[in-house]
Amino acid sequence: MALEDVKALTFDVFGTVVDWRRSIAREAAALLGAGKGLERDWNAFALSWRNRYQPAMERVRSGNRGFVKLDVLHRENLLEVLEEFEIDGLTEAEIDHLNFAWHRLDPWPDTVAGMTRLRTNYPLASLSNGNVALIVNMARRAGLPWDAVLGAEVARAYKPMPEAYLSAADMLGVAPAECMLVAAHNDDLKAAKVAGLSAAFVCRPTEVADEDQTKDREPWEGVDVAATSFEDLADKLGC
Amino acid sequence: MALEDVKALTFDVFGTVVDWRRSIAREAAALLGAGKGLERDWNAFALSWRNRYQPAMERVRSGNRGFVKLDVLHRENLLEVLEEFEIDGLTEAEIDHLNFAWHRLDPWPDTVAGMTRLRTNYPLASLSNGNVALIVNMARRAGLPWDAVLGAEVARAYKPMPEAYLSAADMLGVAPAECMLVAAHNDDLKAAKVAGLSAAFVCRPTEVADEDQTKDREPWEGVDVAATSFEDLADKLGC
Repeated sequence: MALEDVKALTFDVFGTVVDWRRSIAREAAALLGAGKGLERDWNAFALSWRNRYQPAMERVRSGNRGFVKLDVLHRENLLEVLEEFEIDGLTEAEIDHLNFAWHRLDPWPDTVAGMTRLRTNYPLASLSNGNVALIVNMARRAGLPWDAVLGAEVARAYKPMPEAYLSAADMLGVAPAECMLVAAHNDDLKAAKVAGLSAAFVCRPTEVADEDQTKDREPWEGVDVAATSFEDLADKLGC
Repeated sequence: MALEDVKALTFDVFGTVVDWRRSIAREAAALLGAGKGLERDWNAFALSWRNRYQPAMERVRSGNRGFVKLDVLHRENLLEVLEEFEIDGLTEAEIDHLNFAWHRLDPWPDTVAGMTRLRTNYPLASLSNGNVALIVNMARRAGLPWDAVLGAEVARAYKPMPEAYLSAADMLGVAPAECMLVAAHNDDLKAAKVAGLSAAFVCRPTEVADEDQTKDREPWEGVDVAATSFEDLADKLGC
């Protein structure tokens, strides 16, 4: 598949479009640190919450649990993280508000400008494991110009299940190979390619650590294009 | 449910957001009239195509046929309309292009300005029987500022089945009554209310005829708000 045959772009969101680690640490520091006078390592808090993400989805992917929205999994995981960090006494409303920190993640500095350029040539859809309301609320706050919100909740299948990728291409009315996944994670891109989609790697070298991040520093050799930012991707796709 | 409790707006599209009748007549006149030298009543052509819409969906709603996208139903219906109007000799590509006239419908004059105002206070989602690609392509051409594209294909249920309405509210993360359907059709609004949603009537007095349209000239008494345009609705919702 040549790049000029791509007709639609779909995006991984957590880590690719938005900086979940610093955003969650910021929210936890505000709500629990400044708000409650607690002293904890809020970066470690964010990482611990995120580390519970794949195991929680795996119970759904394996069929051991029916499909539930990511908001539900995030909240269950949050209760475990609060226990790990010995934080108690929060009201249900405070827990809900902290859980919805995932609806308030900040974009990377190049995200909005890059998406705006890419959108002139391609329809842009989210292809995230985040649920629709999460992606909609995030987009309204951050100004992300989606043409459609697709992904796990719409497909009722969490990535990397092939149905998640194929459902997005089908709903956008294009063949799988005409649908490109943009992601900062090689595992996601490999699964997209196995399902038949095209793949664009965008490096996000501080997603999981401020420095010396080793994960996903280089693109998997099977990607169709690799970029250092959404602006660079727009250059490479001729937008 | 008071108007101030509404948290999200969903929209019927064909007839409410866009003027399907004049748009389809325009496309048919261009492709078949100007393009092929055929003389037909293109307004009647548009009405005949639209009249086959409900019976085609009813076969899916009744369970006699599995879910298929509206693009598929539109194309099957188009073949019947072409036969009715004694038009033959079109290539498959020409038939596809004419079928995708439904992706190129024009908004009513107040649509974009009204939606832009409404969007400042509410997330806006399509809740149409049109498939995702149809709504996305229409929105990109017409500049419709959707936050999400929901409706029949995402719910895998055609309106007026209650699942179509309830799925939209659920995906937007709001209670049914906090989700308002905006529509020019009282039957649609009644079904939304039965499902538990709120309902806003917007009068579109030339949807099916240039003058003397009798259908849906007045709101059903059960709606929560009635307006004469999207701008008027924005006024009435305080946007």
